[in-house]
Amino acid sequence: MSRAPILKVGIVGLGRLGRRHAENLASRVAGAELVAACSPVPAELAWARDTLQVHHLYADYAAMLAHDGLDAVFLVTPTSLHPQQIIQALQAGKHVFCEKPLSLDLEDCRRVSAEAARHPQLKVMIGFVRRFDASYRDAYEKIRQGAIGSPFMVYSQTCDQYDPEGFFVKFAATSGGIFLDCSVHDIDLARWLLGNPQPVKVYASGTRAIHHDLQQFQDVDNGVAICEFDNGRIATFYASRTMPHGHDTMTEITGTAGRLTVGGNPRKNRLEIADAHGVRNECLPSFFERFEDAFLTEVSTFVDAICQQRKLELTLDDATEATRIGIAMRESLLSKQPVML
Amino acid sequence: MSRAPILKVGIVGLGRLGRRHAENLASRVAGAELVAACSPVPAELAWARDTLQVHHLYADYAAMLAHDGLDAVFLVTPTSLHPQQIIQALQAGKHVFCEKPLSLDLEDCRRVSAEAARHPQLKVMIGFVRRFDASYRDAYEKIRQGAIGSPFMVYSQTCDQYDPEGFFVKFAATSGGIFLDCSVHDIDLARWLLGNPQPVKVYASGTRAIHHDLQQFQDVDNGVAICEFDNGRIATFYASRTMPHGHDTMTEITGTAGRLTVGGNPRKNRLEIADAHGVRNECLPSFFERFEDAFLTEVSTFVDAICQQRKLELTLDDATEATRIGIAMRESLLSKQPVML
Amino acid sequence: MSRAPILKVGIVGLGRLGRRHAENLASRVAGAELVAACSPVPAELAWARDTLQVHHLYADYAAMLAHDGLDAVFLVTPTSLHPQQIIQALQAGKHVFCEKPLSLDLEDCRRVSAEAARHPQLKVMIGFVRRFDASYRDAYEKIRQGAIGSPFMVYSQTCDQYDPEGFFVKFAATSGGIFLDCSVHDIDLARWLLGNPQPVKVYASGTRAIHHDLQQFQDVDNGVAICEFDNGRIATFYASRTMPHGHDTMTEITGTAGRLTVGGNPRKNRLEIADAHGVRNECLPSFFERFEDAFLTEVSTFVDAICQQRKLELTLDDATEATRIGIAMRESLLSKQPVML
Amino acid sequence: MSRAPILKVGIVGLGRLGRRHAENLASRVAGAELVAACSPVPAELAWARDTLQVHHLYADYAAMLAHDGLDAVFLVTPTSLHPQQIIQALQAGKHVFCEKPLSLDLEDCRRVSAEAARHPQLKVMIGFVRRFDASYRDAYEKIRQGAIGSPFMVYSQTCDQYDPEGFFVKFAATSGGIFLDCSVHDIDLARWLLGNPQPVKVYASGTRAIHHDLQQFQDVDNGVAICEFDNGRIATFYASRTMPHGHDTMTEITGTAGRLTVGGNPRKNRLEIADAHGVRNECLPSFFERFEDAFLTEVSTFVDAICQQRKLELTLDDATEATRIGIAMRESLLSKQPVML
Repeated sequence: MSRAPILKVGIVGLGRLGRRHAENLASRVAGAELVAACSPVPAELAWARDTLQVHHLYADYAAMLAHDGLDAVFLVTPTSLHPQQIIQALQAGKHVFCEKPLSLDLEDCRRVSAEAARHPQLKVMIGFVRRFDASYRDAYEKIRQGAIGSPFMVYSQTCDQYDPEGFFVKFAATSGGIFLDCSVHDIDLARWLLGNPQPVKVYASGTRAIHHDLQQFQDVDNGVAICEFDNGRIATFYASRTMPHGHDTMTEITGTAGRLTVGGNPRKNRLEIADAHGVRNECLPSFFERFEDAFLTEVSTFVDAICQQRKLELTLDDATEATRIGIAMRESLLSKQPVML
Repeated sequence: MSRAPILKVGIVGLGRLGRRHAENLASRVAGAELVAACSPVPAELAWARDTLQVHHLYADYAAMLAHDGLDAVFLVTPTSLHPQQIIQALQAGKHVFCEKPLSLDLEDCRRVSAEAARHPQLKVMIGFVRRFDASYRDAYEKIRQGAIGSPFMVYSQTCDQYDPEGFFVKFAATSGGIFLDCSVHDIDLARWLLGNPQPVKVYASGTRAIHHDLQQFQDVDNGVAICEFDNGRIATFYASRTMPHGHDTMTEITGTAGRLTVGGNPRKNRLEIADAHGVRNECLPSFFERFEDAFLTEVSTFVDAICQQRKLELTLDDATEATRIGIAMRESLLSKQPVML
Repeated sequence: MSRAPILKVGIVGLGRLGRRHAENLASRVAGAELVAACSPVPAELAWARDTLQVHHLYADYAAMLAHDGLDAVFLVTPTSLHPQQIIQALQAGKHVFCEKPLSLDLEDCRRVSAEAARHPQLKVMIGFVRRFDASYRDAYEKIRQGAIGSPFMVYSQTCDQYDPEGFFVKFAATSGGIFLDCSVHDIDLARWLLGNPQPVKVYASGTRAIHHDLQQFQDVDNGVAICEFDNGRIATFYASRTMPHGHDTMTEITGTAGRLTVGGNPRKNRLEIADAHGVRNECLPSFFERFEDAFLTEVSTFVDAICQQRKLELTLDDATEATRIGIAMRESLLSKQPVML
Repeated sequence: MSRAPILKVGIVGLGRLGRRHAENLASRVAGAELVAACSPVPAELAWARDTLQVHHLYADYAAMLAHDGLDAVFLVTPTSLHPQQIIQALQAGKHVFCEKPLSLDLEDCRRVSAEAARHPQLKVMIGFVRRFDASYRDAYEKIRQGAIGSPFMVYSQTCDQYDPEGFFVKFAATSGGIFLDCSVHDIDLARWLLGNPQPVKVYASGTRAIHHDLQQFQDVDNGVAICEFDNGRIATFYASRTMPHGHDTMTEITGTAGRLTVGGNPRKNRLEIADAHGVRNECLPSFFERFEDAFLTEVSTFVDAICQQRKLELTLDDATEATRIGIAMRESLLSKQPVML
């Protein structure tokens, strides 16, 4: 019996999420080998060398792309860099995994798609990690098996725990706003769970409950939106930066014969406390803990798809569509009018 | 020690909910005596006589209003009759309890308010029963005490269990549509829990997931809406006629320091079952069981307010405002545009 | 159509629970009229007169039994008085409702049964209130319908919230100990839900976690016990006086095809809070709130059984058996050995 | 910066759990390298070679112990082999990880301890996997930090899903009975969470609810037991082979200021279903899924303790004590009397 080929991977960007992908690639994903790392930050490269024994370190992206034998790149970089970095990688003949969102600009999304179409032998996947979570996957399978009849209504929220330091505010200028930064996940889930419906119209609203300094970015810290799809399918979204109890990602899918809820209580683990506060459970602090397993499954799925030449279920069109709907929500928030799609 | 005066009450309408109010008035509300009943249906009057020992039975509303010594009327009649019946009762010098909604017509609401203003000594209350539910009341008190900081976001749903016989469809022509029939409760709750904010704009959408025959009434069986209030307060609503599992009334109020959820799981009682289906609880079949205690508290509160000359917290203006917002939602559903308030 | 006869009732004992029964009898139970009250405490009688308009007040029990036209008595008195008071009432031709436990002494239980047997036309019921709770009743009905196959294992607990004032310690001398005071309910439930099995053996243990002064009464503040019944049916019990979070009454019944749990979370109501403590619900403070509805159903059931000459499901033998098993547990606690039944 | 030394490991036994340990050692545990495998079953060795690329395969245990450079062995073998295999490994100078229980025989436990005492430089750990579960660990840490005051009461259950094929019955002859096979985990948890109290006495009972053929092994399919420790600490246990809904491992620890519950609902994942059956979640099928992450943490902890020369918290004495208490339970079940410890 012969072994599957080992995919040689280079990672770009070693912030918090980049380090997680790097660790998974270095030791937990069968079939992949992390051979190179790229970052403009010397300390990050030193970490990759010392902790993960990555031998080939690059400050320059183009130099890493030229690394001999490299098969694939993982882009965990600022969103504004995604389109160009993906295109460069494709042109260098590399498979690409890129963190979400694909881009904040629809034209850029299309440029990436066009380039990808020129390299049908290369895989490109945008990291919509929730699709790889066991509970979301279970919901998806149950829907496919008809467990809730015909799904027609989604409620999905991404609510971050309030950070007194307002860390995210620093990125507000480039995040694309709350809908493109947070709800883009929910948009992708809604499309996936509703069977890839065509969006028709969105309406959004929002408020600044705590982070009043977001006004300068025309952004909000709590936003809601309704997206109408064809055939009477509807999704309602809620995104928040100000949850007091933890990271609360929840999705509800209603069909003609049942309803599925993923994440109804963002419980940290299986421990429950009964004391003077009542009966309670502590909550997940961030998406990082919530999707720890999913990040691993995501990377494994991508690596396996390449090694075993399998089609990826999650496509660039999915990523483009999520950006397209997210942009429409931001437009609606600003114009205070519905936006047609 | 002298006893409180006994309020002599006449009830109008003895359908399912009318009978409940009648039973409560007949034997469970201290301070009230059910002395008269009015209905065009002889069998309903016979029930009042035989089961509740109501001695004075009327087919004619004006005749009942003339009943000697009558202090108050309870109107559990079709919505279209509410305004005129309230006005008649006020003109006859009677206190009035009337089932929600006050009216489907804003002008009618205002006529009622104007008449009530001419009789400041008479109490008029519209039956927004959820305000009298112990859990909603607990939420309200906690908010007043600052438990969640400043409340700014509401999600509230009224979702009825799917009825294969489509009972409600028969009333679709006169119900005012899903928002005025169901969401009017959620609208009132949102206003109450958010501290009576001024509504600014609504946007609504909906679908016919099962009851396609609603099209003739321009109604939907699942609707969502966003209502923007002043000072950045927002409420999102969901109403459904097609829940597979039971009656699912739920409200979530988010503030700057906490979130309260009422009815997160519409559990029927305290029993949990573990079997081949997993770990589960059965669900409440309808609002009737959900608010059984609240219906009694509501009536007691109304009776006590009269007997003890206390101000009612729930006003005609509240009822008018709920109708006003509900009408705007229906307009938005039909026009597919936001409606300003 | 003629009305059911009105049962004239006298109540004995107007402590906290006595007042609840009195209020229910005075205004919430159709078919009963509270005509007399008996108490050695003048203030309690004054309360009955002023609040409930009870006209006939007695300091002497025998005098109340002689009250003209009295049909039934409600005994909410110290346990040590139960047997003699029941016997007196029966000899006076009155139906009797008596709070649990029947007695702490088995001989007394048997004397009461013997007397009751001489008055087959009179009803006697001991207040095992949990049998009248909607959730326990639902469990019982589901078991009868075969929902869990053949039930063979019970876990049942009665856990009171810790009272820093140690109120119950004052009654420890006469309470019969934790098993006869608290677990007697669980014993009755276990017998009821397991289909009246024959007890064979008990083993008990306990500890004084906080109330070390219970040592003088040979009592504990936390006790566990195993009761083996015939045909391999087993019940495990837990009783506590030291719960930090509230009154936590819970019962689990396992059968060959399913498990039922009543009261898995002693939630106060339908409100859930998400804040810095996590996601939580507040808890019921005492049995008083937990069984508020059941106390009413219990009294109604007793009154209806008399008025409609129906057999009572809950018998004196049930009460005697609960006492018998409870005594055996206390014996096992003290002897540190199993006790045969 | 130099890397930690790599621990060369050989695994013995490649059944279901052996394969899991092997997979973890082969690719998911930093610091370990799976260099050898031993099994009497050729297909199992072929699996290790083909799937995990283990190059050194042994049918004979002594031969594997002689493998050049081997540092440690993992024993996932029948319980009856544990003592001798551990002793052989120690005498060969190898660290040992061995699946629970250490042995069914107390003398054997002591022989192992004596041998281990002769090799203080070697680590021996018995696989009480639950100590490495994140929720149990969280409970333990909270107790240490005083979250529940002084812990004094444990309720712990290990309840397997009913297997219509009665797989476990085949092993009943050698499993040691339900308490040594299942409750041994709960016993270890109780000791750990209560702060290593001295056991004083146990009492056990049981029944054969479905698997009546267990009678030949003097075993039961449902058992309960009470273990009294010193200083008034008590643990109650429940073990079952007949759960209808899934694998239900649950532990409750009550202290003077709070209660912790691990696994109150054996939910499979974060998905909740609302349909005609009510609101429900599916359940974990077996310990294998429940403790998937804990098995990895367990192995990592063991490997790290060796590589970093850290003391193991979980000792051979702990394993011996669990066996000792489990044996006493079995004796009590058979003798129907309490057994002193």
